[in-house]
Amino acid sequence: MAIESFGTERAARRLRLGMVGGGRGAFIGAVHRMAARLDDKYELTAGALSANAENAKVSGEDLGLAPDRIYSSWEEMAEKEGARDDGIDVVSIVTPNKLHFGPAKAFLDAGIHVICDKPMTLTLDESLELVKIANDSGLVFVLTQNNTGYPLVRQARAMAADGTLGDIQVIRTSYVQDWLTTALDQEGQKQAAWRTDPKLAGAGGSIGDIGVHAFNLAAFISGLELESVCADLRSYVPGRQLDDNANVLLRYTNGATGTLWTSQVAPGNYNRLSIGVYGTKGGIEWVGEDNDNLQYTPFGEPTRTITRGGPGAADVANRVTRMPPRHPEGYIEGFANVYTDAAELIWAKKDGRDPDPGATDVPTVEDGARGLAFIEACVESSSKGGVWVDARPDL
Amino acid sequence: MAIESFGTERAARRLRLGMVGGGRGAFIGAVHRMAARLDDKYELTAGALSANAENAKVSGEDLGLAPDRIYSSWEEMAEKEGARDDGIDVVSIVTPNKLHFGPAKAFLDAGIHVICDKPMTLTLDESLELVKIANDSGLVFVLTQNNTGYPLVRQARAMAADGTLGDIQVIRTSYVQDWLTTALDQEGQKQAAWRTDPKLAGAGGSIGDIGVHAFNLAAFISGLELESVCADLRSYVPGRQLDDNANVLLRYTNGATGTLWTSQVAPGNYNRLSIGVYGTKGGIEWVGEDNDNLQYTPFGEPTRTITRGGPGAADVANRVTRMPPRHPEGYIEGFANVYTDAAELIWAKKDGRDPDPGATDVPTVEDGARGLAFIEACVESSSKGGVWVDARPDL
Amino acid sequence: MAIESFGTERAARRLRLGMVGGGRGAFIGAVHRMAARLDDKYELTAGALSANAENAKVSGEDLGLAPDRIYSSWEEMAEKEGARDDGIDVVSIVTPNKLHFGPAKAFLDAGIHVICDKPMTLTLDESLELVKIANDSGLVFVLTQNNTGYPLVRQARAMAADGTLGDIQVIRTSYVQDWLTTALDQEGQKQAAWRTDPKLAGAGGSIGDIGVHAFNLAAFISGLELESVCADLRSYVPGRQLDDNANVLLRYTNGATGTLWTSQVAPGNYNRLSIGVYGTKGGIEWVGEDNDNLQYTPFGEPTRTITRGGPGAADVANRVTRMPPRHPEGYIEGFANVYTDAAELIWAKKDGRDPDPGATDVPTVEDGARGLAFIEACVESSSKGGVWVDARPDL
Amino acid sequence: MAIESFGTERAARRLRLGMVGGGRGAFIGAVHRMAARLDDKYELTAGALSANAENAKVSGEDLGLAPDRIYSSWEEMAEKEGARDDGIDVVSIVTPNKLHFGPAKAFLDAGIHVICDKPMTLTLDESLELVKIANDSGLVFVLTQNNTGYPLVRQARAMAADGTLGDIQVIRTSYVQDWLTTALDQEGQKQAAWRTDPKLAGAGGSIGDIGVHAFNLAAFISGLELESVCADLRSYVPGRQLDDNANVLLRYTNGATGTLWTSQVAPGNYNRLSIGVYGTKGGIEWVGEDNDNLQYTPFGEPTRTITRGGPGAADVANRVTRMPPRHPEGYIEGFANVYTDAAELIWAKKDGRDPDPGATDVPTVEDGARGLAFIEACVESSSKGGVWVDARPDL
Repeated sequence: MAIESFGTERAARRLRLGMVGGGRGAFIGAVHRMAARLDDKYELTAGALSANAENAKVSGEDLGLAPDRIYSSWEEMAEKEGARDDGIDVVSIVTPNKLHFGPAKAFLDAGIHVICDKPMTLTLDESLELVKIANDSGLVFVLTQNNTGYPLVRQARAMAADGTLGDIQVIRTSYVQDWLTTALDQEGQKQAAWRTDPKLAGAGGSIGDIGVHAFNLAAFISGLELESVCADLRSYVPGRQLDDNANVLLRYTNGATGTLWTSQVAPGNYNRLSIGVYGTKGGIEWVGEDNDNLQYTPFGEPTRTITRGGPGAADVANRVTRMPPRHPEGYIEGFANVYTDAAELIWAKKDGRDPDPGATDVPTVEDGARGLAFIEACVESSSKGGVWVDARPDL
Repeated sequence: MAIESFGTERAARRLRLGMVGGGRGAFIGAVHRMAARLDDKYELTAGALSANAENAKVSGEDLGLAPDRIYSSWEEMAEKEGARDDGIDVVSIVTPNKLHFGPAKAFLDAGIHVICDKPMTLTLDESLELVKIANDSGLVFVLTQNNTGYPLVRQARAMAADGTLGDIQVIRTSYVQDWLTTALDQEGQKQAAWRTDPKLAGAGGSIGDIGVHAFNLAAFISGLELESVCADLRSYVPGRQLDDNANVLLRYTNGATGTLWTSQVAPGNYNRLSIGVYGTKGGIEWVGEDNDNLQYTPFGEPTRTITRGGPGAADVANRVTRMPPRHPEGYIEGFANVYTDAAELIWAKKDGRDPDPGATDVPTVEDGARGLAFIEACVESSSKGGVWVDARPDL
Repeated sequence: MAIESFGTERAARRLRLGMVGGGRGAFIGAVHRMAARLDDKYELTAGALSANAENAKVSGEDLGLAPDRIYSSWEEMAEKEGARDDGIDVVSIVTPNKLHFGPAKAFLDAGIHVICDKPMTLTLDESLELVKIANDSGLVFVLTQNNTGYPLVRQARAMAADGTLGDIQVIRTSYVQDWLTTALDQEGQKQAAWRTDPKLAGAGGSIGDIGVHAFNLAAFISGLELESVCADLRSYVPGRQLDDNANVLLRYTNGATGTLWTSQVAPGNYNRLSIGVYGTKGGIEWVGEDNDNLQYTPFGEPTRTITRGGPGAADVANRVTRMPPRHPEGYIEGFANVYTDAAELIWAKKDGRDPDPGATDVPTVEDGARGLAFIEACVESSSKGGVWVDARPDL
Repeated sequence: MAIESFGTERAARRLRLGMVGGGRGAFIGAVHRMAARLDDKYELTAGALSANAENAKVSGEDLGLAPDRIYSSWEEMAEKEGARDDGIDVVSIVTPNKLHFGPAKAFLDAGIHVICDKPMTLTLDESLELVKIANDSGLVFVLTQNNTGYPLVRQARAMAADGTLGDIQVIRTSYVQDWLTTALDQEGQKQAAWRTDPKLAGAGGSIGDIGVHAFNLAAFISGLELESVCADLRSYVPGRQLDDNANVLLRYTNGATGTLWTSQVAPGNYNRLSIGVYGTKGGIEWVGEDNDNLQYTPFGEPTRTITRGGPGAADVANRVTRMPPRHPEGYIEGFANVYTDAAELIWAKKDGRDPDPGATDVPTVEDGARGLAFIEACVESSSKGGVWVDARPDL
């Protein structure tokens, strides 16, 4: 990979971006904005950044929005932006899970492309409905299961798809944190509170907040369809309404099996996302906190460390690489890759052309439904004492 | 830890050691012999090293045994050694699983202490019978679940026991290999062949050969009693009779839960044994291939790397430490700790005194039964489609 | 660190940014632009992106610059932008080393703040002159020795300054690459060609391009003044004009000593920047490719892994932290911290107030002179056969 | 590597081993004994374990020596053992450096093979004399620069020798500890005291105790001849007589250059021995505390992790491998490889045949002289202010 090819933005055209959620006190909204800015493909133009009118106002001012593009209601924003000639091209929905479906439907109905945070909706039913709405709309819908944007995750997916690993037989994946080891959610911490409230987060606690990332990562890389799960969910902190630890067995339709573990009560783990995918010809291992390296073992040969931007990095990885090897990229860069690919998909629609093939490697509305099907299957399995439950959405 | 305290053998007295199995072409027998030799507590004196008379003879000659101490039958060896004034004090049984119970019973009956490889017997029934025999005999019986000998595994156990971790809630453990990714067992490789033959290995393949190590490690460190398992065992290589991959959910009687994964078909893993134990106050993580370091996180504080022999190493670890920190010790040294502790237990019996307290930290005949109960529960669970099965032996 | 505090941009006011260099075919210019964009503190407004008029034009168009803000001469840009009411507030100079001094002087003379890439100038003499010019101007001058922007490098500096490490005695640092193992510079690769051309790069090859980063990192963290060096520089690739490997001994004025190694011919190293700083009370170790972790050992205690955003992360690190722990940040984020702090320094000047104290932790024009003094001392030392040469600039 | 081939001892014949030094309170003697025992090639038969008669006696009893084989004088032991029909075949000299030359000469004169700890003698002059004595004797002389026994160090040496790395250009090596960060040597700690006493240790402190290991490792792997050094030695702890930190530049006769750093005052490092060897075709990196893995990068390809016993492990490594991959081996095992190879050399002499070719890969008396030349050159260089000094012994 020639060093001069990194980080060429070639922007010129920027999409007008709106945002629902992400005002002061929020976390993930700022991440979306950094991701959108990094490659200069978007210009933040409008926002319903908070349901609280005052917070919406100051948050919009923080971000330099014009007064008439600051909304305190996403319904109003969808309506007005949809009606403007210079209305937003695309909206980012970065609210708690409960407020994904409504805005997504509203903006799609208003003819505005949608980028939506995960899990896609509060329930699988909502997700299945949103699949229809999005598909009928002809608009771009991108789900920010952001780990799919890491260059070496893209490469791992390609290695599974092209047969490098042989027939995939075994998967293990986990996403582990420790921040809910104590009853933070019951002490007024905003991020903890909504994530453990079934009315705002849905049926899944850790399984919905982070387990779904592990599920999605396994599906994205392996290309396999999850068939069923057997799950044991626990709320170890007294009084917590949703699970804070989940142990899950996985069965894929091709006969592969796996384990998925997610926890928010495992001291010493902050955001440890990890996966191994093993086939008849080789295995790969990747850890999110060391995202710039992929361990690849052709069976019977020494393990190779494939480094982002370095020897052995594939075209699909290089396409979304900004920096030379071992100048670390990270979470924001991976997130930005999803945004930049979303921009390409939108421009392709606008231009009436096929998108750059690589840009289609982003999570779809169907992937969102698969995530909800996974979450609900885990919850059902566990509530029945740990039985096998079909995890396939009716797509 | 003062540097001069490392590696003092103070041997003088050596136990006379016999061995069943471990002739030419075997693997683990040589490991047992190195372990026995390291601290000079044993002198190999007799052997029924092979059921094949010629191999028994040449193998015994290899090892410098006197001609009259070379046997081709363990029955004969038990009888004759038991009758000699200078007969062996203790026997090591290092045969395939099928040949554990018979020799163990015979030598105990002959008044000879027993060191036995894992899994303890072919079936749980045999194990339960052996528990009675061993306990009635008043002799020392030590099971070489050798990972219990690693200094920092001992320390991890102490940290769980003394409340450093708080209430243990979550365990994840795995033992992963790749050497059976192809049909090696069907190509005449001796080690592969017996391990995949239910007549020689018992009901478990990977779960019995290596999964039981992960189970034992979790039990040894956490001190928890396993209640039940839900297991999904697979034989991915066509024609293989026993499992080569097992995904297992664990439930402990105190309410803790966990996952256990074992595989012999995961390319890139040679002998990756790994565990994490997480409680309300802290978590520990340990990997066998990096046995000299223990990651310890008091919740809310930075992770500490505790290095064998270094700052933070506890007395129970230092007691079985030979080398200064970062002069790596390894598998043989950990194995030797089990042997050296076994010697202390035997001498204490002979001397009619209590053993050094630390020496009792070795796996017992009851632990052997727990291992078989675990294996058989996993096999039963999987054969019934993956249901929860009680994994407690009737001790 | 509360999770909601990450990544709040609170931008509203953006500085108008110009850029000299960084057109198509360049590398570091795009990095500067991403760094400037990340926190939304700058708006790219003007550029002399290439000395080639056509490249300057298309590169400016790539970036959406208005036609009248696209220049093909930095002299013209300095003059015109300095004269405009809406002229740029600050210029980034991202050209090869030869073209640092001239533009820096011109923009400072035009009353425009300067952000300049490293090494600061072609020669120490130029650097010393620039120190005077910058100081006389009253304007902000920031040198993008970007490693100073990593949160845990800031923390390491604080730990050295506040006595946590005791008296610093020993430093080892290195910056190692392999991309010049072959004669890439003689095969038309643009990045390689100018970096090995003394007319464009100055007297130092690897020592000037990357060794100066290691020098600067050691100085920034330790707070020590380098007294003298003894250097052995080599050009291992035949025909290469400048060094591609440098082995250097360091002596600091406080009596500390160290080693510095830089190489561009060490296969397997892409951008391995590493440092250890050891004092009477403790030691710290940090590696750029794992920038989110800092190993800290209080003497006689276990090593702590301090993770960015996690337990043990200090205020100075948290101040420049965007993401929760183990959602990796990287090179661009660290670079952006320098840019964002530069913005604060500039706004403080404009607002007539003291800047946020943390913002002054960026490399100064004097640091640039120290870098050139280091480079020239190494070159002189080596050319004299490896003798000790004073490395202190006459500031 | 077939799993059944590991760990076959095939001993039968044991050499009678004597030991000088290594009584109670000593450290390295016990390591030598474990190393000698591991493969069952030696039987400890006689010892002058301490110059203190009482300690010699109890130490000999500890080890089960016959009363008439316990000596309190090595002179007496050499004389008597040399005269016995069943006298020792070989002696291990494990005393402080001052007591290497005398015993070595005495036992060689008595016709007894010698295994001697490093550094070989107190002075280079002694070493040069010993070279002559040893060569004239026709006996085996092996120096326990034990790192040469690690399987992957052997493999690294082979990869340098067979051209895999191309022309070697750059070497960096270091051996770093922290145990002398405080004035332990002045507080009566025996190991610290003699190592910092020039009368017992020689002219080098850290450079003689551990720096010589790094020097030897570089020479052993690279096969290059060191030409000259430029060294900066320091005693950071007040009152310490010998260096506790050394920064050294290296020049090899083939034009390669390097850095060597050794320290006993670098908190957080216990025994960190590390090396990188870089050539025109590839690079290798190895760290003692992770001795079972070798990082190998063919230039322009991904880095391979070669694991002892695993895919990619070479014959020279497999020859000295006991355990399957990732069942860690360590310091004792590496040390044992030197002992076991020494046994083969001695048996070959006795049998009047050529030894197994692999067995000659052990450090020789000439290597010992090279070590002393290195140490004395570093001391001279530093004492002259850090000038280049020839480091070649007059062999």
